[in-house]
Amino acid sequence: MTDGSPRPDTRERIIAAAEELFRDIGFQKTTVADIARTLSMSPANVYRFFASKQDINEAVARRMTGRKRARLEAIASEPGSARARMRRMLAEMHIMMAEFADADAKIQEMVAVAIAESWRVIHDHIRDIDTIITRLVREGLEAGEFRGVDPEVAGPCVRAAMTRFCHPSVLVMCRDIPQPTLDELIDFILAALGAERQEASHPACETVRAS
Amino acid sequence: MTDGSPRPDTRERIIAAAEELFRDIGFQKTTVADIARTLSMSPANVYRFFASKQDINEAVARRMTGRKRARLEAIASEPGSARARMRRMLAEMHIMMAEFADADAKIQEMVAVAIAESWRVIHDHIRDIDTIITRLVREGLEAGEFRGVDPEVAGPCVRAAMTRFCHPSVLVMCRDIPQPTLDELIDFILAALGAERQEASHPACETVRAS
Repeated sequence: MTDGSPRPDTRERIIAAAEELFRDIGFQKTTVADIARTLSMSPANVYRFFASKQDINEAVARRMTGRKRARLEAIASEPGSARARMRRMLAEMHIMMAEFADADAKIQEMVAVAIAESWRVIHDHIRDIDTIITRLVREGLEAGEFRGVDPEVAGPCVRAAMTRFCHPSVLVMCRDIPQPTLDELIDFILAALGAERQEASHPACETVRAS
Repeated sequence: MTDGSPRPDTRERIIAAAEELFRDIGFQKTTVADIARTLSMSPANVYRFFASKQDINEAVARRMTGRKRARLEAIASEPGSARARMRRMLAEMHIMMAEFADADAKIQEMVAVAIAESWRVIHDHIRDIDTIITRLVREGLEAGEFRGVDPEVAGPCVRAAMTRFCHPSVLVMCRDIPQPTLDELIDFILAALGAERQEASHPACETVRAS
């Protein structure tokens, strides 16, 4: 039927099939022929949409990082104080990477290669995360919750300071190092942003201090 | 001669020879027989001092981390403000790991294995670094330079926040990510410790603010 009715986007179907195969049989083992077979198409047809396996890898990575970005953006846009949203967003960044470090050994292999090969998609993802954090820092400054920082500098600093809990390899390697806890590190980061100390975690302290 | 005169410590000589071989031919390739040969002794004699190659590896790692600890302790004990010493010490932590990430590919292999196998020596080294940082935070609090932090919590937080610039694998992987700079991250960490903002980097600001 070539009647002009909307067809499922073949490019998207290829990316989805590739991601599923990467999860099932692994990133290195999946061939373009495997991807074509699960979609009942010829490898030549896959190559109409992607110049190489590397291009498919990048598209899958971009799809995955896009989902992560959407989760972080949703938290950053929730109602509530900038401080509370920052705390939830940083905790979510950790949870996403921990899920990933625990569950998807085969996908993890792909990200390790992605980071090692410095794919543009990883850099773009880091830049996107910096943008989300920077925006939230700016909102906190405008609301008088944060102080004394340049959001364009503080955003990347917050992300870098979270490396211990957000970088897939570090997460695995540092599993047995008890200190700091995630909450301690987030408190530390909030203090660097000039947030009133211990406000959220110990509201009682504020009352005592104010009296 | 068995006249009781002090002999060079055989255990130390074995460790020094092993470290040199690890640097020259690599950690995995070096055998106990190689180590024995460079010291003109029998492997059996090496085994009088070390139960296994793994024991020698740990001793070499401990010798290397001991040198790094001494460099950090020297900076922490210099005269000057706690803030300035903290800045220099964190920069030195980065420089030591960067030297190491650049220069000693063969030694790096050993540390990667060390971290992956969670050798006690790596954990001990992290605990030692936390102790040095914690002591400096305490001095800064006592001098009124830092404020509002528990040094026992802040010490490990400072170390964890430096992961981006001090973890060997992260250093290599993040080489091309421009932000934050080391100085920006150290400023951010000093702010988390409650240090007066921008004091050291922009002394002029203090004059303006004080007037």
